[in-house]
Amino acid sequence: MPLYAITIEYDGAPFVGWQRQDTGLSVQQVLEEAAAALLLPGEAPPEVVAAGRTDAGVHAAGQVVQVALARDLTPAKLCEALNHHARPHPVAAIRAALAPEGWHARFGAVHRGYRYRILNRRARPVLDGGRVWHIRHPLDAAAMHAAAQGLLGRHDFSAFRAAACQAKSPLRTLDRLDVARIGAEVVVTAEARSFLHHQVRNLVGTLAEVGLGRRPVSWPRAVLEGRDRAKAGQTAPAEGLCFEFVRYDPEPGWA
Amino acid sequence: MPLYAITIEYDGAPFVGWQRQDTGLSVQQVLEEAAAALLLPGEAPPEVVAAGRTDAGVHAAGQVVQVALARDLTPAKLCEALNHHARPHPVAAIRAALAPEGWHARFGAVHRGYRYRILNRRARPVLDGGRVWHIRHPLDAAAMHAAAQGLLGRHDFSAFRAAACQAKSPLRTLDRLDVARIGAEVVVTAEARSFLHHQVRNLVGTLAEVGLGRRPVSWPRAVLEGRDRAKAGQTAPAEGLCFEFVRYDPEPGWA
Repeated sequence: MPLYAITIEYDGAPFVGWQRQDTGLSVQQVLEEAAAALLLPGEAPPEVVAAGRTDAGVHAAGQVVQVALARDLTPAKLCEALNHHARPHPVAAIRAALAPEGWHARFGAVHRGYRYRILNRRARPVLDGGRVWHIRHPLDAAAMHAAAQGLLGRHDFSAFRAAACQAKSPLRTLDRLDVARIGAEVVVTAEARSFLHHQVRNLVGTLAEVGLGRRPVSWPRAVLEGRDRAKAGQTAPAEGLCFEFVRYDPEPGWA
Repeated sequence: MPLYAITIEYDGAPFVGWQRQDTGLSVQQVLEEAAAALLLPGEAPPEVVAAGRTDAGVHAAGQVVQVALARDLTPAKLCEALNHHARPHPVAAIRAALAPEGWHARFGAVHRGYRYRILNRRARPVLDGGRVWHIRHPLDAAAMHAAAQGLLGRHDFSAFRAAACQAKSPLRTLDRLDVARIGAEVVVTAEARSFLHHQVRNLVGTLAEVGLGRRPVSWPRAVLEGRDRAKAGQTAPAEGLCFEFVRYDPEPGWA
């Protein structure tokens, strides 16, 4: 049965998150119901597995998922069909590929990238409403960036991990954590093989304390070393976070 | 009476355009009603004048307007007050200044910049819905850029001018018309001292014909020289257009 890899974009606002839940509509449910419209007679309901199980309200520009379907479809036809059946929900299949032998959307991912956008001005967001965290007081992005560099590398990230995190180990290797000001925006770019639950949002909430001048540049590193979630900053709001990309080795042969 | 300069952001979708009309809500009406809440007793209703009278559905990230008010307010207080009274409409005052002597938001503008975003992929827009023109067939952005360079300089732009255009002369000097691909987007950047009605959208619609391979790179220049609106491409949809900035000489002392 062919296994398809699909790159997905979604607006997180109307969903309870990636994963199916009894409490409301998930992105997974939208995609599984769209894929179910493509089944052959007698074929079991499809399971759609994602590279990253994003939280309620978190957006994706480059989530990657897999689904096995008996039907033999070109990548373009598969995207068209999923997009047709996913309507009117804000979920789109933007490219697809036949997955390489042994490929897995979640366990095969070797690198994940997130972007967190803060709108840093007094006026509320208009054009970027629902896509940014609005912080009215001026942020020192250079101080945030300097503080972020102290968190790179392989560490026990317990201080930045949600209580509900299901990962067996709190050890993660943070490869990139850049903070840059672009006009009125402060953009945080985070990359790692994998992240703990809420890790990016907890890192951003902690760096924001430095940006606001409430804590010194050395503080996030001290929080990391303390391994105590209660000592870190707030969990930054979901709406500023976007799951940007996933890399694999080997990469699917995207059409 | 102090004259204030104010930089304004708005989502064009819910409005009939910048200018007041009987057919529905305009950005001008929202701002004039917000400013009216700041009048002193006996003061006449304020008129808000904009650098550019954007059409229905066109967005602005950096529109500039002026309003004269008897009340003496700091720029920050003025923005706060306008933003308070503009709610819940998607209009925000992002910065303000006391206007220099003789300054005028419209007639004093020496340079205007627009950005037109095309989402060029098969899947419909999700994260950028309402902010882009969706073109499913692949565009040759390099060919569009090459064609655009033939339109720079001072010309009679009658071929790209709306029938309803009220400008006395069709002569305009186009200083910049760049087309660049950024991932799945094709972005057109247009700059001039001033533009004719629908000029940017007509230029984009014409360049898109080149991008789609329906017309040669030399065609937009031939259309320009023919001065016949009926020979140009379609008016590109309003939702892809954003009024990005205005420059003045002298510039207001933005806070």
